[in-house]
Formats: sequence, C-alpha cells, structure tokens
Amino acid sequence: MAKISGVLTVRNQPKGEAFLEQISGKKPLFVLTIATSETGKISGISAAGKMPEITDYTPPADAELLLLGKCKCFDGVPVTPDGIPTPALISMSALRLADVPVLVASGGLRVKPQVPFLELGGSPGGDIRSGKAVVDVAEVVERAKVAGRHLAKLADYLVIGESIPGGTTTALGVLSAMGVKAEGKVSSSMPLNPHDLKIEAVRSGLAAAGGGFGSFGDDPIGAVGCVGDPMMAAFAGLVLGAAGQVPVLMAGGTQMTAVLAVVAGLDADVLCNVAIGTTRWVAADKSSDICGIVDQIVDVAVLAADLDFGGSRFDGLKAYEKGIVKEGVGAGGSSIAAMARFEGAITRESLLAEIERNYAALMGLK
Amino acid sequence: MAKISGVLTVRNQPKGEAFLEQISGKKPLFVLTIATSETGKISGISAAGKMPEITDYTPPADAELLLLGKCKCFDGVPVTPDGIPTPALISMSALRLADVPVLVASGGLRVKPQVPFLELGGSPGGDIRSGKAVVDVAEVVERAKVAGRHLAKLADYLVIGESIPGGTTTALGVLSAMGVKAEGKVSSSMPLNPHDLKIEAVRSGLAAAGGGFGSFGDDPIGAVGCVGDPMMAAFAGLVLGAAGQVPVLMAGGTQMTAVLAVVAGLDADVLCNVAIGTTRWVAADKSSDICGIVDQIVDVAVLAADLDFGGSRFDGLKAYEKGIVKEGVGAGGSSIAAMARFEGAITRESLLAEIERNYAALMGLK
Repeated sequence: MAKISGVLTVRNQPKGEAFLEQISGKKPLFVLTIATSETGKISGISAAGKMPEITDYTPPADAELLLLGKCKCFDGVPVTPDGIPTPALISMSALRLADVPVLVASGGLRVKPQVPFLELGGSPGGDIRSGKAVVDVAEVVERAKVAGRHLAKLADYLVIGESIPGGTTTALGVLSAMGVKAEGKVSSSMPLNPHDLKIEAVRSGLAAAGGGFGSFGDDPIGAVGCVGDPMMAAFAGLVLGAAGQVPVLMAGGTQMTAVLAVVAGLDADVLCNVAIGTTRWVAADKSSDICGIVDQIVDVAVLAADLDFGGSRFDGLKAYEKGIVKEGVGAGGSSIAAMARFEGAITRESLLAEIERNYAALMGLK
Repeated sequence: MAKISGVLTVRNQPKGEAFLEQISGKKPLFVLTIATSETGKISGISAAGKMPEITDYTPPADAELLLLGKCKCFDGVPVTPDGIPTPALISMSALRLADVPVLVASGGLRVKPQVPFLELGGSPGGDIRSGKAVVDVAEVVERAKVAGRHLAKLADYLVIGESIPGGTTTALGVLSAMGVKAEGKVSSSMPLNPHDLKIEAVRSGLAAAGGGFGSFGDDPIGAVGCVGDPMMAAFAGLVLGAAGQVPVLMAGGTQMTAVLAVVAGLDADVLCNVAIGTTRWVAADKSSDICGIVDQIVDVAVLAADLDFGGSRFDGLKAYEKGIVKEGVGAGGSSIAAMARFEGAITRESLLAEIERNYAALMGLK
C-alpha cells in the first residue's frame, strides 16, 4: 500500500492507501467546476462582506488564475475581507509545479470567465430560501456525464474541484434534504463558522419547497433543485461519467459530501473508484466534521494534503493556520495530486515555496 | 517510414510518412470546432437549399452526433437537399470504432448544441459581403491557444475538425485577403461547385473592407475579421496552442488551407508539427485544388483517407462517390486517426461496415 509524504489518510486508511497506490506516479487532469448563486450573497454566510455582487466574480477569477496564472475579470486575486488570498493560489501552484492540465466546467454563471470553459447548459443558482435553487438539474447532470465519459479517456485519473461562494450552505441544504445530519458539521471559509445562519437558510428553503429533513432522501436531483447549487449538478455529472473508467479525486471540503450524497443516490457503484481529497485545515477543523458526514453516506476514503503555512514569511498565508479560508478551488486535491505525481520530487516544502513565489508575484510583494 | 493501409499521401510524401510514423498506434483527442455565420445563408453558396436558417442547426447537430451518437436539436441527422447524410456520420463511426475521446469547441454559434462544448467567447459570424465577418478574432484566438496548450497535455496528438456552413467561401475570402490565389480552387459540398458565387461574395467583402487581393497579407487576424468565419479563429488558436507540444492533424478539405495561412502568419514555427488530413473525395476533386493552394502557403503534408463508398448497399453513401458532400466534421482526419490507431485492425472496409451500420440505425433503414 502506498503512503505519500505530505498526504494524510483521515478516513478509511486501507481504501485511502489503495487510492494513493492507484494515482502514484500517474498523470491526472484537473477539472475546476464553477458556478454562482444568490445563496452566496446572503448576508453573513460567505466571506463576501459588504459587496455581495463580488461573489459573481470570484469563481471566474479563480478559473482565470488556474489557466492564465493571473486574473482578468478581477484586479489582483480574490481575497477575503481580511486580505487573505483565494485558495486558487495553492491549486495553481500545485498544478503548475506538476504540469497538470486544467479544464474549467461551468454549472451556471452570472459572470463568464475570460478563459475557455466547458459550457454545460446550466443557469446561475437562486437563493435556497426560495426552495427553488437550481433549474435544469437533470439536464446539466446528463451533459456533465457525457463530458466526464470523454475526459476520463484523456488522463490516468481526474481531480475535480469547485469554486462557488456560499457552497457550504447549499451543501447543508442538500445533505439535510437527503436525510444526512450535517447541521453544525459543514465547514466555513471564515474563522467563526456561522452555523446558525446556514441552518436557518436551509430550513427556510426546505419549508418553501414543501419539505423538511430527509424529504428528498430518494431524489438527489430534487434536493439539488430545491436547496442546492449549480456546481453540484455539474460536479456530480462529471463524477458519474468518469468514475466508471478511472479513479476520481473529489477535491474540496465538506461541500464534497453533498456531491457524494448526490452521486450515491444516482449510481453508488461508481464510488468504489472515488476518494475525497481535502486539506489538513478542513480535516482538523473543530467547527466542522467532514468524516462525520461521510460516515452517514458511503464508505469512501478521505485524504488530506498536510500543508503547513505556519512557517511562511507572508502573513496572508500564515492566516491559513488560523482556520481562515481552509480549502476551495480544489486546493487540497491539487496538492495531493502534485505530491503523488513524481514520487517525492514535489514535497509540501517545495509546494509552499512555489505558493510563496506566486503569492509575492501576484500581490506585488518581495 | 510508415505507410498505413487506407491512408494516401497526396502532398509531400516524406513529411506525410513521417507524420504517419508519429501517430501510428498513438491515442489522439478529436476536437470539433463549430460555428455559424450569415455567409452560409447566401443563396446558392451552401447546400442549405430553401431554408437558410437550417445552417444554424447543422454544426450543433454534428456536435451532438459525435458526442451522443444521435442528434438532439435535429430530427434524424443533417442531410443535403438530396438526402445525403452529414459527413459527421463518417467521423462518428471512425471515432467510436477507435474509442477516440471527443471535445467540441465553439467559435461562435447562433444555436447552442445540447451537449458540453468549450466556450471560447466568440460570436456567430456575419455575412462576408459586409467586410465585417467576425468580431473579437484576436481574443478568440488567444482563448483557443490557452485551451490548445492544456488539451495537448491530454493526448499523444490532436485531430481538429470543423463544421460551419459556407466555410469554403470564407476560406476563399481569407486566402484572397492574404494573397493566396484560390479562386476556382476551393471545394464544395455540392456536385456543381458554385465558384462564381463564392468569388463574387469574396470580392464584395474585400471591397467593403476597403481592401482587395493580398491587402491583408501581413494581418491574418484582420483577414478573418473582414472576410473569414468564427470557426477559423477558434481552429487557428487551438493549432497554435497545441502544435508546439504534440502533432496536430488538421482534419478537413480546402477550408484547412485558410486556417493554415492564418497559423503561418501568426507563428509558422508550429507548422513543423502539422499535417492536413482529408478524404480521397477532396484530394481527387477536379473542381478544386487543395494541394495547389497549400503550395502557396507552407510545405506541409496532405494526407487523405482512401475511403470508397462505391460498394455500399446504401444510395445515400454511394452518392459520396459522385462528389456530393466530400468532407466535413473532420471525416477524413477521423478516418486516418482510426486506421492509424491499432496497426491495421481498423481498415477502410471495417470502417465502411460501421458507417453503414450507423447510417441504417440513424435513418431507420435495414
């Protein structure tokens, strides 16, 4: 069984090591699934602060950063209100270091990225409190499946990440709708996790949809349509299309558990080829519980990139150790893929050096 | 040097055989570049007949056929006014037989396909007689280059095809604008090649743009913008991004020479890794002269799939031997890639059998 330095197995050790064995030395394709929604604009829920419209620009800016090494629809890079940079910086550094090709797929966007992206026919998401969060879920899942089937032929395995503001709230929505107990267990990009706000939004949404906890247990498409987001439809379809052929690393934090529940409800068989890849910051987070959610769904492995920015010379990166941001844009999964690529040639230390180099260049620091 | 049964080298034998050597046994990615334009609706220029709007549906229908094995935005499959089926039928059969993954890229569409496609930010093309045929050419080229760079990391080589009605007229436009003598030399999907109509449209367009033959000799972007089509911008960018890393087979008829001229004008160095792949029906066509155009641009090889439908049991396929359709949707290049894939396991005979099988299934025949 493989152990890769810099990668922790935080759930299901045997499956985790078997998965690492499968991807060790192999060439992945990274797919970034992006979307926007009105849920991300609910006051206090995401780190968007006083300018909710900025959440429409974050996912396309993240996509631009991965493909171009800089943003076009944004000055500099997306940052939290405290000036902490987007985790796309981590993903970009890892993917470039390991020469991993990147494709961007849209689940539904208000602002389009100024880079190539796979259009899957979806629309931007609504506010989950309406109980009508996403239209055309089944069609987007179907198109993403077609894409996943073809993309799986192009690489040894797929790493799929996401960027959508407010994504842990919609994750709580879908998990609750499907009968998974996730209140108080989803993560947050902010140091103080606003669990109450998320729970309130989800309960309002489920009530507006005429349902409640578990009322969409057998209907993942309905759960996403009522209280999910458009990223989930695209992401789940890609996994469904690809994982029958190649391993798939679902790269993200607690949002991944909602996608996992959707995939499990549509075609659980493909999940024998799937693991979740996140960061140590999510795995060790006291204000959320990724493994406690996975336990209720399906017995997949959870891996974590053992990143440590404590020794960084930049405060903006050190802040990750205080639980700010934590994950996103497939930061953990990209780092795992980079460290698995060349058998020890890329370490968490060389990765941090590359992240610092890119951070300094993009922020105009020395 | 490699010779592959079923593949003819119709220009530059040494380079052609070296290219075949490079791709023999290798795994390609097929990219279909689609777009629509008002030029395709000029009466008598394309095979669209009495319903010019149908040309807005043909490229998305071709894309659907390749990805799904059937059309969604179209009943049955696109056919000429005489009922001869789209060459996408050939491409689909070849690509499926050889298990080649497919991506669709849009240069600019009036009707979107109901399958995943790479959005490159372009718009549908205008009528070249306006002298303002395509907007944002430079930006689409740039985005397609980014895509090409990433796609090149995903396969041993790329086969890039096109679907755009009226494409030989815009090819004549760009070739003329760049000072390549192509009047009377571009191909047609119809048995009687309407050279005079094409020449008239091109001359009107160049005059409207305040130019004439050769006035865009040093400005490929300007040539496409005035008298080209949106497929060319996307196609040229993909070649520019990919061919620095892997071989690229430009799959099409005389339209490929216009893209070749654009690429040669922007970065001729990448063309050492490029060949044109077409069908015997184009190579042997008396009413056009693909090699005579290439001779004026750059010394690349032209390969041709030696398809012969003379023995087919279906009149719709036999018609290809009378010079109807001839090429399109990368039919020739797909066939070459399929025959090169498994060292003789896929022959022109087994390919015809597969095409007949798919034709019968899609047309409801026995």
